[in-house]
Amino acid sequence: MDQFINQKETIVTDAIDGVLAASGGQLARLDGYPHIKVVVRQDWDKSKVALVSGGGSGHEPAHAGFVGQGLLTAAVCGDVFASPSVDAVLAGILAVSGKAGCLLIVKNYTGDRLNFGLAAERARAFGIKVSMVVVDDDVALPELPQARGVAGTLFVHKIAGALAEQGADLETVTAAAQKVIEGTGSIGMSLDTCTIPGSPKEDRIASGKAELGLGIHGEAGVEQVDFTDAKTAMQQVVAKLKPTMNGGGYVALLNNLGGATPIEMSVLARELARSDIASSLHWMIGPAALMTSLDMRGFSLSVIQVDGEQEALLQSPVGPAAWPQMQKLAEDAVQPLPDGLSPIKPTPSTHPERRAFLEKCCDVLISAEATLNALDAKSGDGDTGSTLAGAARAMKLVLDDLPLADLTQLYRAIGAELGQTMGGSSGVLLAIFFAAAGDASASGADEVGALKAGLERIQQVGGAAPGDRTMIDALTPALDALPDGLPAAAVAARTGADHTATIVKAKAGRASYLTEDKLKGHNDPGAEAVAMLLESLTNN
Amino acid sequence: MDQFINQKETIVTDAIDGVLAASGGQLARLDGYPHIKVVVRQDWDKSKVALVSGGGSGHEPAHAGFVGQGLLTAAVCGDVFASPSVDAVLAGILAVSGKAGCLLIVKNYTGDRLNFGLAAERARAFGIKVSMVVVDDDVALPELPQARGVAGTLFVHKIAGALAEQGADLETVTAAAQKVIEGTGSIGMSLDTCTIPGSPKEDRIASGKAELGLGIHGEAGVEQVDFTDAKTAMQQVVAKLKPTMNGGGYVALLNNLGGATPIEMSVLARELARSDIASSLHWMIGPAALMTSLDMRGFSLSVIQVDGEQEALLQSPVGPAAWPQMQKLAEDAVQPLPDGLSPIKPTPSTHPERRAFLEKCCDVLISAEATLNALDAKSGDGDTGSTLAGAARAMKLVLDDLPLADLTQLYRAIGAELGQTMGGSSGVLLAIFFAAAGDASASGADEVGALKAGLERIQQVGGAAPGDRTMIDALTPALDALPDGLPAAAVAARTGADHTATIVKAKAGRASYLTEDKLKGHNDPGAEAVAMLLESLTNN
Repeated sequence: MDQFINQKETIVTDAIDGVLAASGGQLARLDGYPHIKVVVRQDWDKSKVALVSGGGSGHEPAHAGFVGQGLLTAAVCGDVFASPSVDAVLAGILAVSGKAGCLLIVKNYTGDRLNFGLAAERARAFGIKVSMVVVDDDVALPELPQARGVAGTLFVHKIAGALAEQGADLETVTAAAQKVIEGTGSIGMSLDTCTIPGSPKEDRIASGKAELGLGIHGEAGVEQVDFTDAKTAMQQVVAKLKPTMNGGGYVALLNNLGGATPIEMSVLARELARSDIASSLHWMIGPAALMTSLDMRGFSLSVIQVDGEQEALLQSPVGPAAWPQMQKLAEDAVQPLPDGLSPIKPTPSTHPERRAFLEKCCDVLISAEATLNALDAKSGDGDTGSTLAGAARAMKLVLDDLPLADLTQLYRAIGAELGQTMGGSSGVLLAIFFAAAGDASASGADEVGALKAGLERIQQVGGAAPGDRTMIDALTPALDALPDGLPAAAVAARTGADHTATIVKAKAGRASYLTEDKLKGHNDPGAEAVAMLLESLTNN
Repeated sequence: MDQFINQKETIVTDAIDGVLAASGGQLARLDGYPHIKVVVRQDWDKSKVALVSGGGSGHEPAHAGFVGQGLLTAAVCGDVFASPSVDAVLAGILAVSGKAGCLLIVKNYTGDRLNFGLAAERARAFGIKVSMVVVDDDVALPELPQARGVAGTLFVHKIAGALAEQGADLETVTAAAQKVIEGTGSIGMSLDTCTIPGSPKEDRIASGKAELGLGIHGEAGVEQVDFTDAKTAMQQVVAKLKPTMNGGGYVALLNNLGGATPIEMSVLARELARSDIASSLHWMIGPAALMTSLDMRGFSLSVIQVDGEQEALLQSPVGPAAWPQMQKLAEDAVQPLPDGLSPIKPTPSTHPERRAFLEKCCDVLISAEATLNALDAKSGDGDTGSTLAGAARAMKLVLDDLPLADLTQLYRAIGAELGQTMGGSSGVLLAIFFAAAGDASASGADEVGALKAGLERIQQVGGAAPGDRTMIDALTPALDALPDGLPAAAVAARTGADHTATIVKAKAGRASYLTEDKLKGHNDPGAEAVAMLLESLTNN
């Protein structure tokens, strides 16, 4: 699988450059490429407690995407899935730490613990106050004291970040971070492994299976489970977290591990909101890609029970766009359908002349069925005649239900009838034609004016213009000639229809997909239908 | 490829339910499932111009994710890649339109044009003012008058949405939308097709190839091009847009088509910021998943040249979290590395007794190399002896460079030396041990107190406690006994080290991955090293 990278050696520095470019000048990096990859806040004055996090890359937007007001002060980025060096962490600490000191937020991986730990010692030798917390929110292996740090880390960033932004001291921020860590549980599920740049993808999860309890570095899940659907998947994840939960007031963080699509994440959000723990959840963060594992098609769920202070800290505004707003988990909000979806039945009225005219139109179209089908077969699927004849037959059955005496209402009623009985694009376009004619008539347009308004509207909606080899090529000259009488209109329509046989580069409709030899010498069947109708009305 | 959905028939309604659940009560839907899938603002009072958009689903967060303050009033969602019905669009229009009227923002696909167009006619018959604009931003097929509507549609939503929110009338909002459409160009590139739920995935793009100029429904790109890296990919995309551009003041919208990862999108953002058109770009929106094509591993770039009013409208705040902030395209911001990365060389000083003691320690560890390696081989990779001996040999070479007369500085110097010359986790942990001892000594701790501070710190950083089968099992009792003299410490260390042979469930370090039979009866090599060192120092 190809990826949008340049080379695996520069993927992290390239990505950091991109994060900076899109940060609106809010972020900078330290001048230590390639070994020291540290992203820092540009607006930082060291007057408050600094928050430094990081670790291996491949978890974007974590962590560089969370550097900014109310979140991290600096992110120290290792190579993909590799801990940053002691020097890199130390550079991050020294770059942002003032007298208020620095909290290191470290995910529980040996490399990160050791490298951040030693960097902390080296920083302390400079007299800098440094504390360090280790996040171990993964509940996949409950018996292991060294649980991994996964997406629950974001709770720590947010709550500690908000406190630090308020000016709390290092002891307070550290204690708050530790309290979050103790209260957070997370678990992940995936349908596929991730693609590590430069390495072949391991194909270890069969279709119909999912891995439950996985880390964020492509390591295998604790167990493979059967996968059937999103609902069952969410139930399996929830079943792992539920035993750790007690009471209400929880915040859920629904994290995309990188390769799940937005529509899948929304389906999962639905299932979470209907799950066994839904009544314990007051808030939701996400669904969003927050702590990814490259392109892993999976998700993780993190939960924490919050008190009022933590709730307020989670709600406080932040700078980074990657942080989604926390939202109250909402009840289903359903509004009734509006009135007006069933078209108002017009009151029938009589107008013998118009009734006879309409009936004649219908008969002409019915009798033209075979001719128009044959013409359409030369450049299409041969059903133009049947489509028009079918609509005409249906119209004949309802002639006495029409508001024949009221031309405005009659246009609208014909439009509604065609919209319901005539299939395909042409049915919709003719429905629009007559509905627009009705509107124009209601506004005082005369007969020709009303029909021209219909023509204008179908050009706008359909996107076709004269010369595009459609029925418009006959309808336009016909309506232009109509003030001179039906015979003049029929002559104009015929000229227009015959001209379509010379248009070999169709620009709209289905004919636009056909080659020249399929079109040359054959009239467009829609234009031909208009011409035949007007000619028949004139001759009879 | 399995997906996190329930069944393809319910994917859109399930996803809408999830969007509502995560909306914090800001969104509702109309009660028309399964045929009418319309998401509306809950806070809407119909006093302003309503904005209705939509189309087929599979483009999330478009369009339901953009319903909210300053953006859409309603989103009408069809099935995946299928236009919503006339009734669904009409329901959306009727639900949100008041006297100020309604603007329909439609992407240029025949089905959408016709269904939105007919729904507009039916709404007009109720006396509702409805205007409609058709977005055709795709520049992939410049000769085709019916260009597709793709991610540039978001510019229309944002600018028209901001104007409507300000209370502009329908004519103004419509004209502004039309102006945006005329100024917007977009093009997409993908490395893979998308997975349509319930259908097998078409495998039409070979490795080393990319499709350029693709739509958002899995339709093939206009051309297949060679794919080498992100830089070339962005150049190819930019080359299609550049001929449409003139002058500066452009906004770029960098859209994830669904399956590209955040790290890839950041790499692409970097290349955009270094591309041929970078000097014309003043603003960037994204990178973000805005108008996706399910899980397509691709991106699209949309550009528009904005005037001051449009710029302000694009900047105005919105409700929906899915809309990313617009950011000024930033210059590279690089800050110098902080001082302090090169450890301060301590001033050498003499203290013959300490020098002799250290040398003896080194000699003991060098002579224990084979023994410790053999012990380690029983439960590990057999290099504990060599690691310690190597560090000891290196230490002997620098004994005269150490600040032997100043215990605080000596601890720190030993820590720095071990951090540089001793590999692996144990080197980092011993470096932390001595650095922390130095800090404690600087704060006035005596020798035992300083070493105990080091022990405490490596327990915190390393995550191991007594009983976890590590060197801590010898070090802890030894330091406890040290006030009674070196021989007492040696006895205690020996007892502790021998006890590790009975610990068969290791909880930290590499031994935690080993089975009982690999561990039983063998001392932990780290603990054994501590005991051997103290015994040798006592006996000599």
